[in-house]
Amino acid sequence: MEFLVRAENRLPPETPEEERSRLKKGERARADELRAAGNLKRLWRVPGRNATIGLYECADATELHDLLSSLPMFPWMDITVEPVATHPQEQ
Amino acid sequence: MEFLVRAENRLPPETPEEERSRLKKGERARADELRAAGNLKRLWRVPGRNATIGLYECADATELHDLLSSLPMFPWMDITVEPVATHPQEQ
Amino acid sequence: MEFLVRAENRLPPETPEEERSRLKKGERARADELRAAGNLKRLWRVPGRNATIGLYECADATELHDLLSSLPMFPWMDITVEPVATHPQEQ
Amino acid sequence: MEFLVRAENRLPPETPEEERSRLKKGERARADELRAAGNLKRLWRVPGRNATIGLYECADATELHDLLSSLPMFPWMDITVEPVATHPQEQ
Amino acid sequence: MEFLVRAENRLPPETPEEERSRLKKGERARADELRAAGNLKRLWRVPGRNATIGLYECADATELHDLLSSLPMFPWMDITVEPVATHPQEQ
Amino acid sequence: MEFLVRAENRLPPETPEEERSRLKKGERARADELRAAGNLKRLWRVPGRNATIGLYECADATELHDLLSSLPMFPWMDITVEPVATHPQEQ
Amino acid sequence: MEFLVRAENRLPPETPEEERSRLKKGERARADELRAAGNLKRLWRVPGRNATIGLYECADATELHDLLSSLPMFPWMDITVEPVATHPQEQ
Amino acid sequence: MEFLVRAENRLPPETPEEERSRLKKGERARADELRAAGNLKRLWRVPGRNATIGLYECADATELHDLLSSLPMFPWMDITVEPVATHPQEQ
Amino acid sequence: MEFLVRAENRLPPETPEEERSRLKKGERARADELRAAGNLKRLWRVPGRNATIGLYECADATELHDLLSSLPMFPWMDITVEPVATHPQEQ
Amino acid sequence: MEFLVRAENRLPPETPEEERSRLKKGERARADELRAAGNLKRLWRVPGRNATIGLYECADATELHDLLSSLPMFPWMDITVEPVATHPQEQ
Repeated sequence: MEFLVRAENRLPPETPEEERSRLKKGERARADELRAAGNLKRLWRVPGRNATIGLYECADATELHDLLSSLPMFPWMDITVEPVATHPQEQ
Repeated sequence: MEFLVRAENRLPPETPEEERSRLKKGERARADELRAAGNLKRLWRVPGRNATIGLYECADATELHDLLSSLPMFPWMDITVEPVATHPQEQ
Repeated sequence: MEFLVRAENRLPPETPEEERSRLKKGERARADELRAAGNLKRLWRVPGRNATIGLYECADATELHDLLSSLPMFPWMDITVEPVATHPQEQ
Repeated sequence: MEFLVRAENRLPPETPEEERSRLKKGERARADELRAAGNLKRLWRVPGRNATIGLYECADATELHDLLSSLPMFPWMDITVEPVATHPQEQ
Repeated sequence: MEFLVRAENRLPPETPEEERSRLKKGERARADELRAAGNLKRLWRVPGRNATIGLYECADATELHDLLSSLPMFPWMDITVEPVATHPQEQ
Repeated sequence: MEFLVRAENRLPPETPEEERSRLKKGERARADELRAAGNLKRLWRVPGRNATIGLYECADATELHDLLSSLPMFPWMDITVEPVATHPQEQ
Repeated sequence: MEFLVRAENRLPPETPEEERSRLKKGERARADELRAAGNLKRLWRVPGRNATIGLYECADATELHDLLSSLPMFPWMDITVEPVATHPQEQ
Repeated sequence: MEFLVRAENRLPPETPEEERSRLKKGERARADELRAAGNLKRLWRVPGRNATIGLYECADATELHDLLSSLPMFPWMDITVEPVATHPQEQ
Repeated sequence: MEFLVRAENRLPPETPEEERSRLKKGERARADELRAAGNLKRLWRVPGRNATIGLYECADATELHDLLSSLPMFPWMDITVEPVATHPQEQ
Repeated sequence: MEFLVRAENRLPPETPEEERSRLKKGERARADELRAAGNLKRLWRVPGRNATIGLYECADATELHDLLSSLPMFPWMDITVEPVATHPQEQ
C-alpha cells in the first residue's frame, strides 16, 4: 500500500554543525536502506522549506510508523501521513 | 489494517421522504454486509450532526475506497480517512 | 518540472447518468493522452472521496494549467497545485 | 459513555533519556490500569507522529479529565476530546 | 453531564414565511419541553447570526443526539458539540 | 452583559512546583472574589486540557478585560472572549 | 460598549435588480437611523468584497443583535462580531 | 500604492456559453483599460484554477475597490486584497 | 488611507519587570506622537489578550510599515494589517 | 517560470545586534546577486511584519530551492512558494 508522507524538519537552527551533519548522514544512510528495500519509492523537496514529501510503500500504517520512527531525525520531524489508493486508470 | 473514517452526510434536507428512506434502508443493508465481512468494526454517531465515525479494517486504502464507494449514500457523503497504526501496548 | 496536483471533483450528485458517463469517458481519454505524452506520471485516488492526486511533469505552471484545463471535468474540479523540487538524494 | 481522545506528546526531543524512559514506563503502567478498569478500550498510534488516538469509556467528561490528567505525560500532552454517541445500528 | 452546543441555522432566506413561522413555533415548543425536563439549562444568541449556544445537561452523547435531532429545525442546523467537565472550584 | 471566556493555560510544564502552587492558590482566591461579586457565574474545565470555559457577567468588554487581567495566571493564559446575547426565549 | 462588526453580504448575484435596489435603499435608510442614534459610529468597505466593517456602540450584545437583525439585508449577511475594550491610552 | 489581489471566479459551470463569453470579453476589455491607465501592472493565472493574482497600483483602498467592482465578473468573484509596502532594497 | 491593525504582543512573561516597564513607557510615548501626527486615530484593547486593534491613517502601506516598526515593542509583536476603503455612505 | 515567494523571518528578537546586522548585510548582498542574475524580479515588504513577498523567475522548483536556501537568513525563514502561470492577457 502507498502513502504520501510530508515531513517538516524542526531541528533548531542553533544545532551545532557537527550534530547536524551527523544526523544528516544518518538520515541519508537510513533513507538509502528504505530505498533498497522498496519502501521509499520517491522523495521530493518542498521548495523553500526544510521539508520533504515521500512516496512510501509498505504493508500497512504500523509498518510505516516503524520505518519513519527509525529515521535519525524523527524526534525533530513533524510528519503527516496520507493514505492513497490505486486509481482504476492504473490498475 | 485499520482506518478511522469520518463521514458527513450532505443529502439535502429537501430530499423527498421516500428517496431518503430508500437510501437509508440501502445504507443499513450495506453496512450490515460490511459488518458481517469484518470490515466495519465499530460505528459511532457524531452527536448533533448527520455524521458518523467508523472503524474499518481492510487490506489497504484501495479496498477501503471500494467499500466506501459501494454505500448508497456515497455520492452525498463528505468522507475523510485517517490511517491508524497498532499501538505497541496492544501488540 | 514535477507538480503534485490535488483535484476534488464537485460534479453535482444530481448530474444525469448519461452526462456523467460521457464526462468520465472523456476524462479517461484525455488522461491517457497525458500519460502517453509523459505529462501524467502517476495518479492516485484519495480514499473515500471523488478526488485524485496526480504527479505531473511539464515545462512550467503555464503548461500545467493548459493541460489541466483541457480535462473535460475541469469546470467542476477544485484543483490545488504544489510544485516539488528534486531531492538531492535522487539527483 | 465513549470518547475519542487524540493526544499529541510534546515532550521536548532534548529530554534526557532517563527521564523519558521513566515517563514512558509510568505512562504504560497507568494505561494498563485504565485498560483493566475498562476505561481505555482501544489505543492507536498516529503513524509518523508521537501521538495516539484512544477510545475511552467513562461516566462523563469530568471522570475522563481525571483519568487523562492522571497520566504521567499529561503536562506535555496536547489533548483533544470528541464525544461519540452510540449509532442506532449498534443499539 | 453538561455540553455546550453551538447551532448555526442554515434555513435558506428564501423559505416561505409560513413554513419559517411554523418551524420557529415548533422549535420554541420543543425547547420549552427540554427546559422543563432539565435538559436545556441556558440558551444564548450569537450576536449578528442566526445561531445559538446552548448549555445542555443529559446522561451522555447518545441522549444529547436524540434531543437535538428532535428539534424541528434539526435538518437545517449545523451543530457542534463540546463536552465540558465540572471544574474543581465548583465541586 | 454575558461573555463566554475560553482560557488556555500555557504555564510551562517545567515551572517549579512551588511557583505553580502559589499561582494556583492566587488564581483560586481571585476567582472566588469574582464569584462573590457576581462576575464569574460558571466555570467549566475543558476535558483533557489545562483550560477552562467561564461564563462572565460584567458591564462591558473594558470591565471584562480588567477582571481577566487581574488573575495571577493572566500572563500565561491564551484567552478568547465571545460576547453572547440574551435569547428571546429567556427574556 | 463598542463592537467591530464584519458583514459579508451573500445576496446571490442572480437577484433581480429591482429587489437588489429595494434592499440597498432600505439598508441605507436603516443605517442612517443607526448613525443618527449614535449606534453606528463608522463604516468601512472591505476592498474587493461585498462586505463591510462597522464600528458599533450599544449597551450590550443583546441590543447589538437587535440592531443588526433590523437591517433589511440581514437574512443574507454572514456577520461576525468582535467586542473591543477601551484602551488605557484613550481613557 | 501597490496591492496583490487574488480573485477566484465563482461563475457557475452551468452558465450558458453565450453569457460566459460576453462576460469574458467585457472582463478583458476592462482589464485592458486598467492596464493602459497603469492600475493593473501584472496579472498571473493560478495554475489549475479559474483564478488570478493581480498586481495593482492605485491611490488607496477606496480607488482599488472602485476599480475591482467595475469588472463585469465582479458579482461572481471572491476577492482578497493584500497591501504591500515598498522594500528598502527597491527604494 | 485607513488601515485596521491588529497587534498581538508576544513579549515573554519572563521578561524582567524593569525591561517591560521601559518598553511600555516607550510604546506609550511613540503612540502619543502617532496620535499627535494624526496617524493613530483610535486604539482598542482586545479583551482578555495582550493585544490591540488600531485604526491608522497614512499615505500608504510603506509609511504604515515605517510607523509600526518604529514602535519599541515591534520586535515582539505579531501584526496583521487590513486595508479599509471609505464606504459610499460616509463619502 | 515565475513564483511568488512569501518569507517570514523568525530570527529571535534576542539575537545580538552584531549577528543580526551581519546576517542582514549578507542577505542584501545575496539578494542583489539574485536581482542581477534576473532571478529576483520584485521584492515587497509585508506591512507590519518582518516578512517579504518576492517575485522570482527561475527554471523550476529545484533551482528556486537552491536560490532560497543560499540566503544567509534561510535557517530562520518560514517560506511558502506559489507557482504562477502566465495569464493569456499577457502572452
